[in-house]
Amino acid sequence: MSGEPGDAADFARTPEPPYYAVIFTNLLSSDDAGYAAMGAAMFDLALAQPGCLGAESVRGPRGFGITVSYWQSEADILAWKAEAQHVAAQKHGIPRWYAHYELRVARVERAYSGPEGRGLA
Amino acid sequence: MSGEPGDAADFARTPEPPYYAVIFTNLLSSDDAGYAAMGAAMFDLALAQPGCLGAESVRGPRGFGITVSYWQSEADILAWKAEAQHVAAQKHGIPRWYAHYELRVARVERAYSGPEGRGLA
Repeated sequence: MSGEPGDAADFARTPEPPYYAVIFTNLLSSDDAGYAAMGAAMFDLALAQPGCLGAESVRGPRGFGITVSYWQSEADILAWKAEAQHVAAQKHGIPRWYAHYELRVARVERAYSGPEGRGLA
Repeated sequence: MSGEPGDAADFARTPEPPYYAVIFTNLLSSDDAGYAAMGAAMFDLALAQPGCLGAESVRGPRGFGITVSYWQSEADILAWKAEAQHVAAQKHGIPRWYAHYELRVARVERAYSGPEGRGLA
């Protein structure tokens, strides 16, 4: 690994479980004009939504990315879904930007920090 | 975004929910000698564990990474925890490689694919 290390701002400061996670894994298509600005705007929009506890996101050099957003409740996720679909419909961008994506909604039950905290899992 | 797009091998082919996800977000320390080989070995080891349904992983240029592994049951995760701690103890690498990590265990309740599949969330 080379390059400048990140910082604590990369991590979401989530409360004690339970809470919810939306795991969004995606591969950009080769036709990704305008994606960077849209992706950043959608990320900021999620963080500003009611019930959003934070988010973590990274994209690799080949266009594969993972964004995990954390939410207080499933109702908050459904409200975000409606908002995101509204914005996406306005922008007509989702089908073009993504070659493929997987979206999983999960209930976080346990959480640990390290290495100064507890063990590996 | 520039660079060669990834391919379907980046995505985990998970079954219908429910199943479990281990969301591991981490920041490499600047002293990451040996990490790349160890990280790849741990990833392959997870995929070979009983009950592992797949995994998705990406690391950005500043050393921040997200790996999500998927599991049939919590018992499978606990068995993997024991195995991973055993390997980590042998290698003495975890405290040195990671500046920080967050590990969250979650139960996946809903999942969607796109853009050819269903909606955004």
